[in-house]
Amino acid sequence: MSLIDEARKGIPPEIQKVAKVEGVDPEVLRRNVIEGRVVIPRNANRDYDPIGIGEGLRVKINVNIGTSKDHADVDEEIEKARIAMKYGTDTIMDLSTGGDINGIRKRILEVARMPVGTVPIYQAAIKRAKKDAIVHMTEDDMFNAVERHAKDGVDFMTIHCGVTKQSVEILQASKRLTGVVSRGGAFLTAWILHNGEENPFYSQFDYLLEMSKRYDITLSLGDGLRPGSIHDATDAAQIQELLIMSRLVERCRDAGVQCMVEGPGHVPINEIEANVRLQKKICRGAPFYVLGPLVTDVAPGYDHITAAIGGALAAYYGADYLCYVTPSEHLSLPTCEDVKVGTIASKIAAHAADLARGRDADWDYNISKARAELDWDGQFKYAIDKDKAAKYRESRAPSEKDTCSMCGELCAIKMVKDYLEDKDK
Amino acid sequence: MSLIDEARKGIPPEIQKVAKVEGVDPEVLRRNVIEGRVVIPRNANRDYDPIGIGEGLRVKINVNIGTSKDHADVDEEIEKARIAMKYGTDTIMDLSTGGDINGIRKRILEVARMPVGTVPIYQAAIKRAKKDAIVHMTEDDMFNAVERHAKDGVDFMTIHCGVTKQSVEILQASKRLTGVVSRGGAFLTAWILHNGEENPFYSQFDYLLEMSKRYDITLSLGDGLRPGSIHDATDAAQIQELLIMSRLVERCRDAGVQCMVEGPGHVPINEIEANVRLQKKICRGAPFYVLGPLVTDVAPGYDHITAAIGGALAAYYGADYLCYVTPSEHLSLPTCEDVKVGTIASKIAAHAADLARGRDADWDYNISKARAELDWDGQFKYAIDKDKAAKYRESRAPSEKDTCSMCGELCAIKMVKDYLEDKDK
Repeated sequence: MSLIDEARKGIPPEIQKVAKVEGVDPEVLRRNVIEGRVVIPRNANRDYDPIGIGEGLRVKINVNIGTSKDHADVDEEIEKARIAMKYGTDTIMDLSTGGDINGIRKRILEVARMPVGTVPIYQAAIKRAKKDAIVHMTEDDMFNAVERHAKDGVDFMTIHCGVTKQSVEILQASKRLTGVVSRGGAFLTAWILHNGEENPFYSQFDYLLEMSKRYDITLSLGDGLRPGSIHDATDAAQIQELLIMSRLVERCRDAGVQCMVEGPGHVPINEIEANVRLQKKICRGAPFYVLGPLVTDVAPGYDHITAAIGGALAAYYGADYLCYVTPSEHLSLPTCEDVKVGTIASKIAAHAADLARGRDADWDYNISKARAELDWDGQFKYAIDKDKAAKYRESRAPSEKDTCSMCGELCAIKMVKDYLEDKDK
Repeated sequence: MSLIDEARKGIPPEIQKVAKVEGVDPEVLRRNVIEGRVVIPRNANRDYDPIGIGEGLRVKINVNIGTSKDHADVDEEIEKARIAMKYGTDTIMDLSTGGDINGIRKRILEVARMPVGTVPIYQAAIKRAKKDAIVHMTEDDMFNAVERHAKDGVDFMTIHCGVTKQSVEILQASKRLTGVVSRGGAFLTAWILHNGEENPFYSQFDYLLEMSKRYDITLSLGDGLRPGSIHDATDAAQIQELLIMSRLVERCRDAGVQCMVEGPGHVPINEIEANVRLQKKICRGAPFYVLGPLVTDVAPGYDHITAAIGGALAAYYGADYLCYVTPSEHLSLPTCEDVKVGTIASKIAAHAADLARGRDADWDYNISKARAELDWDGQFKYAIDKDKAAKYRESRAPSEKDTCSMCGELCAIKMVKDYLEDKDK
């Protein structure tokens, strides 16, 4: 039985657990799951700590890891998974495209204590590319990859169902600067143009729903036509794909299959609110999973920052789930250090949005209380990255133990504290 | 003659230059300078490249450098100034509190080709602390420091005129978590409480105006009571100080003295818009210079990111000038690397806001055009940090020359480009 079917009859343990962790009413959460405003990814073949994504819950973050053809070191990817978990990621996606893809996926599923997602079409494309060409993928190639990942226990999958003849036609007529920047989107756009056929994930969507139901997979409707530059943000191709996805969201609901909707991409600050409100309205509250968004194109090497700005704002306006971005975005496969920095930047964005939406202010209160008391150990205890904070202080140690090397004896907190406390006596 | 007096009679060269760089009408800019909605800091004793801060102009950033008692290496500070200039800071503030403070200031004034600011009360306080105690500063100590900096050629100065008996009374009655976190604010709060006297910069504001006029100094009204934690954001003490400063802004206008207003600090995302709109309304469009704002307290070691989120948003809503924050904020005096990272993060925030306000989209267009053409040299040319971007790509080189090691042969741009171009043939 799928989670939605179970929820229709009672409160399954996943909903109990998530309600407790989030501090929300299990009955409200149950209703939100049934009506598709919250997802709790859960593969029938896997055991893990459930998390909820959507309305009324904390903002969640995802970390992408995985090999590429040029760098296929499995142990390094497992180390990345551990780092991402240490710094608080909520989910992990394995986007491996190099080496023993099946073996890597299995190891990540073993290591991760949280939901794991994949993009099965990568594997289908690579397999076919070895034989002849990606555009010769068959429907079976595509669905077999989905089923294989489902059997392995993958909890949610990105499927680019909204890349259709119609949306590709609009793409071709558009004056895009950066074309298609989603890999899955590119495979399917090329496939449609080459074969003159409809995207099988769209034309056979009922089959996808059947399979999703069988393994209790959560579908993440991929935005294959997301803008890859500020110039292309919020254009007709992007919105056409969203409209198509909004109809598929309703079909997921009718079928009792959990689903999320993926979103941009590159979006200037002044268009972020509109993007979130449009998705929320048109998809009737389906969880919104945004990739960034990056608020400018000019900062390769610092896109964890451009994404933290966009992600914080998107989540404040209602996005539920932020895909992290690392400093290596647009440049190379991330290293372990990139994964760490990307995870922390995304966590900062998610928490800043939670705070602005009235949640978890105690975290900030606790660290600031320690700061006001010049209690350095207390500050490190609550810091998002204890080690880095402590290292900074040690590297330029102050001569006065309770202050820091920025202000030393001129410490504002210390000076006024003494006066305000004297005053009380 | 002060810049405002000159502007009343015609268009001085500074206004001509700024109008040209910004692409605005010199007549409109002249009007904005006269009416106090734009400042062009300019000390009568100094020659430099003028910049404008305020309505209708690009968002500007400031980099703080300077020694502390614990680290007083002048050459390192000069190196920081050079790094800040390389990565595009618009102004530099020298906040030195250690070593030969007069000598450092003079060297920074020589090196910087842009406006330089200081906080003269630091020097007055340190000088007095060596004799007896900061709270024994005399009015002369305070004003002599201002005059000395003015004579040296400092273009703008932070003066905490809004820390008054009234605002300190409200501070004492408040339930603040982090008290006073501004150094200048703390000196004056302690001074007022110790001496039971009014802040001389407030009670003798006319004298300050006379001196400012004589040297043509731009006043930056310091927010000595800015919130130092999310808990204290937008509280009565902060707003009381702002109300006091708004009256001083009018007195600056009447006297023909240029002035800006400084602002928070730590502010959650949901309060940033209100903070900016309040300042803009109540100070009748005076330039707003924000210190961050940091959108959460929990990320010491990453406060360049928490500040980039807050700064981008504040500038989007109308703040004119962002004070950078480095990763070492709250922990130690920044290193050269910290200054670099802080400058870039702040520049990203400023540009993202400019973009959202309809400016400089060609920068993003150019880098994305290069990206779409798989022209890596072009991407690096337009990157905010060319060296870092190039290093990332080199460190994990791709096997296919035109792609990157993330996607390699699966490059979305390449794949769809081929298909869309074939289609055209």
